[in-house]
Amino acid sequence: LQTKLPKVGTTIFTVMSQLAMEHDAVNLGQGFPDFNVPERLIEALDRAMREGKNQYAPMTGVPALRQAIAAKTERCYGHRPDADSEVTVVSGASEAIFDAVAAVVRPGEEVIVLDPCYDSYEPAIDLAGGRAVHVPLDPATFAPDWQAIRAAVTPKTRLLMINSPHNPSGAMFTADDIAQLTALLRDTNIWLLSDEVYEHIVFDGRHHESVLRYPELRERAFVVSSFGKTYHCTGWKVGYCIAPPLLSAELRKVHQYNTFCTFAPAQWAFAEMIEAEPEHYEQLGAFYQSKRDRFREQLLTTRLKPLPVPGGYFQLVDYSDVSDLDDAAFCRWLTTEKGVAAIPLSPFYESPPWGQRLARLCFAKNEATLDKAIERLQKL
Amino acid sequence: LQTKLPKVGTTIFTVMSQLAMEHDAVNLGQGFPDFNVPERLIEALDRAMREGKNQYAPMTGVPALRQAIAAKTERCYGHRPDADSEVTVVSGASEAIFDAVAAVVRPGEEVIVLDPCYDSYEPAIDLAGGRAVHVPLDPATFAPDWQAIRAAVTPKTRLLMINSPHNPSGAMFTADDIAQLTALLRDTNIWLLSDEVYEHIVFDGRHHESVLRYPELRERAFVVSSFGKTYHCTGWKVGYCIAPPLLSAELRKVHQYNTFCTFAPAQWAFAEMIEAEPEHYEQLGAFYQSKRDRFREQLLTTRLKPLPVPGGYFQLVDYSDVSDLDDAAFCRWLTTEKGVAAIPLSPFYESPPWGQRLARLCFAKNEATLDKAIERLQKL
Ligand SMILES: CSCCC(=O)C(=O)O
Ligand SMILES: CSCCC(=O)C(=O)O
Repeated sequence: LQTKLPKVGTTIFTVMSQLAMEHDAVNLGQGFPDFNVPERLIEALDRAMREGKNQYAPMTGVPALRQAIAAKTERCYGHRPDADSEVTVVSGASEAIFDAVAAVVRPGEEVIVLDPCYDSYEPAIDLAGGRAVHVPLDPATFAPDWQAIRAAVTPKTRLLMINSPHNPSGAMFTADDIAQLTALLRDTNIWLLSDEVYEHIVFDGRHHESVLRYPELRERAFVVSSFGKTYHCTGWKVGYCIAPPLLSAELRKVHQYNTFCTFAPAQWAFAEMIEAEPEHYEQLGAFYQSKRDRFREQLLTTRLKPLPVPGGYFQLVDYSDVSDLDDAAFCRWLTTEKGVAAIPLSPFYESPPWGQRLARLCFAKNEATLDKAIERLQKL
Repeated sequence: LQTKLPKVGTTIFTVMSQLAMEHDAVNLGQGFPDFNVPERLIEALDRAMREGKNQYAPMTGVPALRQAIAAKTERCYGHRPDADSEVTVVSGASEAIFDAVAAVVRPGEEVIVLDPCYDSYEPAIDLAGGRAVHVPLDPATFAPDWQAIRAAVTPKTRLLMINSPHNPSGAMFTADDIAQLTALLRDTNIWLLSDEVYEHIVFDGRHHESVLRYPELRERAFVVSSFGKTYHCTGWKVGYCIAPPLLSAELRKVHQYNTFCTFAPAQWAFAEMIEAEPEHYEQLGAFYQSKRDRFREQLLTTRLKPLPVPGGYFQLVDYSDVSDLDDAAFCRWLTTEKGVAAIPLSPFYESPPWGQRLARLCFAKNEATLDKAIERLQKL
């Protein structure tokens, strides 16, 4: 049996979570909150089950949820997608990315990804028979290098994948990035896939440059998001894709025969939740900002140097004052010997920058969890 | 934008459910129960949510659920798969089928499917760059024609897909089919995908010939099932695949980057449910058998002729005494004019048998629903 995915091993998130468990480490590795979902969401889901909403949802998603997503998109980004033809509910942002790539990438075509990038992008491209072309972000600021991206475009380029706020760095696209992106794509046949799962976790009054704000971009884009990060339920796997009707139709062809539909009671619950608490979206930034600020302040009492965090729920730290190990070895050591699990950046790269000494810590945690981690990190 | 899936339209199940809604027809089309899931399952899921089991489940599934599936498999089929390396929980049997095909089928390879077959098989094969080779089942009995299947094997054949109990016919593999299948696959490089989602809905004391009973078959097989049919929750989309470690490893590589994991609270709920009520599996046949028997008896008062139903929750009826329309037209007419939605068989075929006059009715319904349908069918 010759594997079709020779590069795929167990994902770094699983590896580090397992290691954390075995060594009783505080798990700041894999990105998930250690606090619970809102009570209202549990109640709404419970009610949906009791009302018998347990059979197949429509393939594209429960209409009330698609409407709620459309309305929420309008409130946030000033553009209302059509709930029927442009919004599709799927089993997590991961499935949206997988389906979108499968829908438009053909054997021999190229997809530009910006390193460091999430580890699911390339296997999806490989399975479609495409080739991932890796263009590094700026190693200091994690900003896109538009000249390098432009240089990577060939007649075979079919898709460009972007992610803002960015995992793992938290970097965010600026208005200038949007302008460059727009100019780059103009008059090409390149589709855009914008992974915006951290869209509502943005700090210091920043404005998330959703692709949905920009007509010239959204007309060629799959915009992917999820409720996992927004409602503290990474294990519910309810995500969605907003795309123009032509692209949505192609994505749905794949989705229809991949998972067909997504856990129905949760769809009803999210529809109710979004409607009932529209202010949740605006409050989420402040909720995480206070966690970020407190955690960063505490980190100043350790020998780890925190990098800026414009958005998302990850804190990158420079550990070069502590260790000369490469990042994979450092994170393993930190987990097994020092009791704090972190994620190395190298698995997010095709070729990690030489000598980069950065690790990713997730601060979507209760204060007690972060305090315990800091206590251990102070001993470095 | 040139589609990668030119043959894919809206699935017949969605089309007919929509038509049923528009015309207020009794919906015996798309296969789903109109009664609710067991109360215990709702309570268990609710408890899981309240206990905070809302973050990523392990990619392969919650260990307690994989153990429960392994134990249940041993009780039912006398073989215990290894929960760690051979059982994978995914987002419905659909995802299992999609992942398995994506994992082992390469461009240019062939996959044998037996018509009529479920409509998700071929798009999964197409997306992998493979080619579906359709071999018809016997048009009267829906038994496999082993000579024809053997004749369809070429050096490019990579996978054979089977389904017992069979959707749409309810036909079941016999011991002789298993012997023929075993002989056919021996000394080949052909993998087997066995779709057994109706495994526990079998009638008249029949014995489900699960591929898991047979060492020579299971060592080369993806065996796919789901809780949707077994616990009346087709909209929960929790399924699983049992396969030897080598095949499971390949399936997991796809699953890891497709949906990654499946709605976590339901996984905990199923683990608890299977453990608490092991007898559910044995009782399910009797539960559906009484529905089948009652419905068939009622059908004798109409001009539709019911075919035998060895397993599953679908009743095929021969409508040739009522109408000369082809099956697509007949089902449309039955839905819009007569108020009962049914599923035509032609969408399950590459080339439907000439003059076949069969429609599929789902009897996974409350008595009142079936009574109402019968009342309408009596007027034909
Ligand atoms: C699917 S596990 C990975 C979770 C995550 O998004 C991350 O930690 O980056
Ligand atoms: C995914 S909708 C189809 C449901 C089903 O299995 C059937 O009706 O055959």
